[in-house]
Amino acid sequence: MRLKGFQKLTSVDEALQVFFNTLHVKRLKSVTVPLHSALNHVLAEDIIALENLPRFDRSAVDGYAVKAEDTFGASQFKPKTLRITDKDEISSTQAKQVWTGNPIPKGANAVIMLENTKRINGEIEIWVSVTPSENISKKGEDVRKGEAAVKAGTRLRPQHLGLIAALGKGEVKVSEKPKVAILATGNELVELGGKPQEDQVFEVNRLILSALCRELNVEPIDLGVAKDDVDEILGKIKIGLEKADAILTTGGTSVGVSDLVPEAVNKIGKPGVIVHGIAMRPAMPTALAVADGKPIIILSGNPVAAMIGFEVFAKPLICRMLGLKHAESRPMVKAKITKRVIAVLGRKTFVRVHVFQRDGEFFADPISTRGSSIISTMTKANGYFVVPENREGLEEGEFVSAYLFDNVEMVDENV
Amino acid sequence: MRLKGFQKLTSVDEALQVFFNTLHVKRLKSVTVPLHSALNHVLAEDIIALENLPRFDRSAVDGYAVKAEDTFGASQFKPKTLRITDKDEISSTQAKQVWTGNPIPKGANAVIMLENTKRINGEIEIWVSVTPSENISKKGEDVRKGEAAVKAGTRLRPQHLGLIAALGKGEVKVSEKPKVAILATGNELVELGGKPQEDQVFEVNRLILSALCRELNVEPIDLGVAKDDVDEILGKIKIGLEKADAILTTGGTSVGVSDLVPEAVNKIGKPGVIVHGIAMRPAMPTALAVADGKPIIILSGNPVAAMIGFEVFAKPLICRMLGLKHAESRPMVKAKITKRVIAVLGRKTFVRVHVFQRDGEFFADPISTRGSSIISTMTKANGYFVVPENREGLEEGEFVSAYLFDNVEMVDENV
Repeated sequence: MRLKGFQKLTSVDEALQVFFNTLHVKRLKSVTVPLHSALNHVLAEDIIALENLPRFDRSAVDGYAVKAEDTFGASQFKPKTLRITDKDEISSTQAKQVWTGNPIPKGANAVIMLENTKRINGEIEIWVSVTPSENISKKGEDVRKGEAAVKAGTRLRPQHLGLIAALGKGEVKVSEKPKVAILATGNELVELGGKPQEDQVFEVNRLILSALCRELNVEPIDLGVAKDDVDEILGKIKIGLEKADAILTTGGTSVGVSDLVPEAVNKIGKPGVIVHGIAMRPAMPTALAVADGKPIIILSGNPVAAMIGFEVFAKPLICRMLGLKHAESRPMVKAKITKRVIAVLGRKTFVRVHVFQRDGEFFADPISTRGSSIISTMTKANGYFVVPENREGLEEGEFVSAYLFDNVEMVDENV
Repeated sequence: MRLKGFQKLTSVDEALQVFFNTLHVKRLKSVTVPLHSALNHVLAEDIIALENLPRFDRSAVDGYAVKAEDTFGASQFKPKTLRITDKDEISSTQAKQVWTGNPIPKGANAVIMLENTKRINGEIEIWVSVTPSENISKKGEDVRKGEAAVKAGTRLRPQHLGLIAALGKGEVKVSEKPKVAILATGNELVELGGKPQEDQVFEVNRLILSALCRELNVEPIDLGVAKDDVDEILGKIKIGLEKADAILTTGGTSVGVSDLVPEAVNKIGKPGVIVHGIAMRPAMPTALAVADGKPIIILSGNPVAAMIGFEVFAKPLICRMLGLKHAESRPMVKAKITKRVIAVLGRKTFVRVHVFQRDGEFFADPISTRGSSIISTMTKANGYFVVPENREGLEEGEFVSAYLFDNVEMVDENV
């Protein structure tokens, strides 16, 4: 029975740095997918416009194409009159009806909106003047020919798909979905559907971590549950290394006897465990390892600590594997904390909070908890904030950056 | 050729109210799914805890279970000594080693953390005192027996799945995925893969709206593209009414000649189109209708206006169909606008903005645009804000509530 404590805790930032320096994250291969299947994938090529968008000057409104100069001076009290034409080209004091998206006829340089006109037989009365180019979408105004409309490393949202489709591109190169294998360890664990003994609990971490993976468009691979046995753990991790691009484990890492996962990982070969014991709370026993050139993140068995560990270590890893241009962070709001929060000097403390909005201001209500095993603190919370290493706590009324993992209730509706 | 303008525009709030009053939104049926497939579904039942969670008092840390009273007065300068026991019950001045999650032995009422102890043969030296209950997760602390751990109407996030699993529940009742049929209309439209004529454009709205549906865990059904022909439009809408719970259309709605979709919808029967012409910009020509008891949202053909129309009208509809407890809104930040914004009095104006963070403050940079056809304004933007009906614009430096549809770049890193 080894009962060493951690001799030294590594700061979160240093841990990430050492991890990535050792790992040399490999970008995933790219695959070509049809645009309608590309939502939430990460673009692996620049989308270059082969033509101008729009391809021609077109009307941005329903109305009449005119020569702007003919409208100068028109007002509600002094309307002007223009003659309607059906020709492809207009002359002085003529107007041609256009609908949104229609090409602008030759000779016209502006469009006057339908609602600012009145049609009387073959003529229109206009009540406003327009300036040259007004209400016209100029050729290339949306995207110029040769321009990169959407850049490699962009997570594709509905608006990106729309823009790519507008350029006539029906398929795109995206990063392959990373495969992340997930293993839970612990003698105390019973799988869902089973019947726990007096001192056992249901295993929940694989379900939570799989869901977190799916939210990032990552494919989780289930390695099941291993007993507290180095050989069993090692066997399952080896399967994971064959099938997946990265491995997450939970449990079997601590300051004490149950340090079995790091032990198993170190048997695979160098470099093995790089960092073990992080200056953070919760998730202190997290370890980061590299085996067979693949990253292994050894998370605490406590569900809350496992989630925070995923957020802090697995998410940046996945973002790099995907080749994302910017690391993705959760939506963040500045919120006032409703009560004093105690933290530990020298540790990055992740405080779960319930963020709400009242009278146009955001408040963050810290969720009290005794430990990182209380899952309901994560369902009562909709976000978290971080107390930095150099603070022993924060005072009521201080502003924090709260990162959101669920909706914020709107108590009122302001601008 | 009808060339009427809208006689009267309806405010957004009134439009929604009239729509929902006429429609009597039907909640979708519920289905039972395994927990691992339940991510992002909406819970259709309360999850009642059949047992306490935890089911027993357990240690929240790795350390030693003790009688708190035995530790009083211990400090780094004045350590106390306790004898280690392996029994299931401890007596005075005894301690039993426990790992996180282990049951607390009888007689113990606190746990002292491993790092605050030193083991010397059969004894431990302790350097801190603990109070009764310290480092113990009490039976029922997470969820009490009989309590609703997760309530009906909750969108299931990873943390909800974890909590439900911890209660031993392997499947849940969720609302069926709503089926939303999507039809694009317009002679000017060419499907992706086709070859546009001089004055034609690629159809992009179905792709954008399908993606927006998928983001809400809604199943889109493609009704294809209809020409500007009332009968063709009517035929496709009828197919949609058979297959789907709601219909979205784009194009064929305006102040003018191309008012074909409302005309087609009205042929199906009462009540037909309820609201047509909304006091908003963009998306003014939006119409809301009910046919065969099902909602039809008639959106502008301009992609940006269609997206805003979806956000304002389709999203609240879908939230109600799903039975969501709270309408879901996008993450929102208070941001300072970087330049003056002009709006139209009497219209709710949706301004696309690029939100960024600098020196711990949020700024919203309005994206210039000539019209709602410029899709790249939605990819340059990562959010929008609303100028209310009673404002002609907003001044530089005013604070707005910016709703985010993409990541915010973090220019710095603060607390």
